[in-house]
Amino acid sequence: MPHVLEKSVTTEVPGPMSKATSKKLDAVFDARAVYFVVDYDKSSGNYIVDVDGNQYLDVYSQIASIPVGYNNPALIAAAQSPEMISALVNRPAIGNFPSAQWNDILRNGLLKVAPPGTDKIFTAQSGSEANELAYKAAFMLYRRKERGEGQDWTTEEISSCLENAKPGSPDLAIMSFANSFHGRGFGSLSTTRSKAVHKLDIPSFNWPKATFPALKYPLAQHAEENAAEEKRCLQEVEKLILSWHCPVAGLIVEPIQSEGGDNHASPAFFQGLRDVTQKHGVVMIVDEVQTGFGATGKFWGHEHWNLTSPPDMVTFSKKAQTAGYFFGNPLLIPDKAYRQFNTWIGDPARVIVSKAVIEEILSKDLVAQCARVGDVLYTELEKLSTQYPEQIKNLRGKNQGTYIAFDTQDPAGLVSAMKRLGVNIGTCGINTVRLRPMLIFDETHGNMTNSHALGKVLNSRA
Amino acid sequence: MPHVLEKSVTTEVPGPMSKATSKKLDAVFDARAVYFVVDYDKSSGNYIVDVDGNQYLDVYSQIASIPVGYNNPALIAAAQSPEMISALVNRPAIGNFPSAQWNDILRNGLLKVAPPGTDKIFTAQSGSEANELAYKAAFMLYRRKERGEGQDWTTEEISSCLENAKPGSPDLAIMSFANSFHGRGFGSLSTTRSKAVHKLDIPSFNWPKATFPALKYPLAQHAEENAAEEKRCLQEVEKLILSWHCPVAGLIVEPIQSEGGDNHASPAFFQGLRDVTQKHGVVMIVDEVQTGFGATGKFWGHEHWNLTSPPDMVTFSKKAQTAGYFFGNPLLIPDKAYRQFNTWIGDPARVIVSKAVIEEILSKDLVAQCARVGDVLYTELEKLSTQYPEQIKNLRGKNQGTYIAFDTQDPAGLVSAMKRLGVNIGTCGINTVRLRPMLIFDETHGNMTNSHALGKVLNSRA
Repeated sequence: MPHVLEKSVTTEVPGPMSKATSKKLDAVFDARAVYFVVDYDKSSGNYIVDVDGNQYLDVYSQIASIPVGYNNPALIAAAQSPEMISALVNRPAIGNFPSAQWNDILRNGLLKVAPPGTDKIFTAQSGSEANELAYKAAFMLYRRKERGEGQDWTTEEISSCLENAKPGSPDLAIMSFANSFHGRGFGSLSTTRSKAVHKLDIPSFNWPKATFPALKYPLAQHAEENAAEEKRCLQEVEKLILSWHCPVAGLIVEPIQSEGGDNHASPAFFQGLRDVTQKHGVVMIVDEVQTGFGATGKFWGHEHWNLTSPPDMVTFSKKAQTAGYFFGNPLLIPDKAYRQFNTWIGDPARVIVSKAVIEEILSKDLVAQCARVGDVLYTELEKLSTQYPEQIKNLRGKNQGTYIAFDTQDPAGLVSAMKRLGVNIGTCGINTVRLRPMLIFDETHGNMTNSHALGKVLNSRA
Repeated sequence: MPHVLEKSVTTEVPGPMSKATSKKLDAVFDARAVYFVVDYDKSSGNYIVDVDGNQYLDVYSQIASIPVGYNNPALIAAAQSPEMISALVNRPAIGNFPSAQWNDILRNGLLKVAPPGTDKIFTAQSGSEANELAYKAAFMLYRRKERGEGQDWTTEEISSCLENAKPGSPDLAIMSFANSFHGRGFGSLSTTRSKAVHKLDIPSFNWPKATFPALKYPLAQHAEENAAEEKRCLQEVEKLILSWHCPVAGLIVEPIQSEGGDNHASPAFFQGLRDVTQKHGVVMIVDEVQTGFGATGKFWGHEHWNLTSPPDMVTFSKKAQTAGYFFGNPLLIPDKAYRQFNTWIGDPARVIVSKAVIEEILSKDLVAQCARVGDVLYTELEKLSTQYPEQIKNLRGKNQGTYIAFDTQDPAGLVSAMKRLGVNIGTCGINTVRLRPMLIFDETHGNMTNSHALGKVLNSRA
């Protein structure tokens, strides 16, 4: 077992070694966003150690992407396995020349946690790529239905698509929500609506943006108002589908809008989205890049909704340590081979890591742990919010595992003060602090450490 | 050293075990494009072994992406290194929390082979992503110049980009060439013009497509005609830049159009592109995803051109075993942090493999070997083309290392017959067979084996 560390920060953050290393790096690789430079060999479990020897409890987890702790022994074993070494040195074009093991790696890994109602997978390398592949599947399905089953492509379609012109290259849209984040490729970025810094100066598709419900907190005190807000948003979604300048082939939604500020909606809202998308033949894509793999206290964030029928596609990345999308409907496999294709189609090395992550989550029941610890953490934060009502506002994430966030004045200042007390924590949206601990975060960290440091910071700022 | 294998095919291709495994896989993962299922543990050097025990000389190399042989000992050593294990189990958000080693890994790896005139890098996970990142850099640079240095973003720009509307989300274009392949994301696919199967039903940007020169072979017999063709194409490029409905911010070109049929142009043509792009302030992006890393007999395909000034960006993937783009001009770093950014920004595990690949190429002088072996191979094929003029047409790739291709009737049939004789070879374009051996391919394979099998096939089909 790895050595258990403790919070300990003895320099400014970033410290002198971090600054010096970062400066050298910046001459060849843009290092302006570096918080600190890390000694990953010394990092362990929930703790990240920087090159100045500072030790932080990490509740940011590489932008919500470390699942089961630094230097996790089970992952080290997977990294040293013969199948990993082969995957690293013999990287396949997996669509043409899959390994003898590929089928088993998928079935004993990712497919074990396939969301209810899905049983097929397409692998990718990032959340952005996963979403774009899902959009392409949605567009091809839309045109397949429009064309009629068994109808072959026309010569006009074949020639016009090479000109980026209709009818081969059609005007079709993916709908997304205000404040969403779905990635940074040209398609995924067209659906991302959270911040100008992601989008400015980049050409985009004229696709519809719907309003995401702005719920009021505490939820129990605003039940009627919030229900009306969600109803209004659902009506807008339907209106946009019916009135947009081109057909809406798909809709993408995060279970909790993460980068955009940890915005939640109720199960009823998502059931409404499922109903309206089914009514109008719009593919529903659930973007679980940040919510998937347990952090909400269920394996998939959308399992909180109890939908009457499953989403059409579910995308994943981050804590999965690989990426891709799950689906059930075989019509989402394009009518011909090579339409959904690329050289590598993901990375088996990362899929092997993912398999070890899944084994670790399932064997240690970490999703249940996350639900339990999240309740403790939420209760602690609720107490702090009563004590410091101006500094912890709109606390959210009740019964959502450790997927907890709150609004505050000067989130950057709070995060910076927390780092100096040995807690690496992040922000999202405009004035939100988000908790993204790993799935191995437990009561000792939640109760004793994190809110204790937070209490100190809040007190000093009150 | 790995055991040296020989060609040996004892079953139909794919064999019964390949078929059975592929069928099982197809229930969960689209396996329609599978040629055969591979036993990577038994594969070695230039030879790939399938699950039926068939051994093939591999001159397709995972769609041109295996650089230095299956189970290369130097790559195995890198895969077993402590830094690899850490990179696999502690995957960083490298823009925020780079490892202490990241600077050295880049400088002693990829940056050692940075194309002349470039000294900075942005890492990615695929060729498609690398190209899209380059497009984004080109768009941000264009608007930076238009806006004026030091000018901040306007509130109108900031709000409109979230609506996917002007001026924040501007109409700007990337020009590419007919028959090009630059990837399958929504931006890169808008520049891909090779085949309908890649593009049909997918919305695209209204970006300009220029004609790529259609050279006549043998080159020596058509010098004047080919020069006129290239001049005509260059004039068209300039005309498109001046007349397109929106500004052309960038132009992307492959040194040899690969997926589109192994189409070559002369150094004079590419110098002309450099001149016209500089004249009009258009960023020139050279897509070396397939040509980079030695196969043309130079490390970078564009080094054959002896440009008077270097390209603005050079993208890479495939044989690099990782991806990204090189650049020199610091103005291609956006004016603010987080504009060119994503959670992982590539994969350090794959960058470590890349470093081992580079060490192997440089220490064994494999680029020079590839140039030498390519000459032998070309001469052999030239002889065969004289013997079978109807079956080997438009032989191309002289003095381009092993980057050799020819047109033939029924390329799929030829490739299939070659597989049965133990040579795994691929096609491109409409009627082209392309050779993409690894950099460790040598005279014994070129002279004795490959063209020998090819001679048999051609003879049987003559």
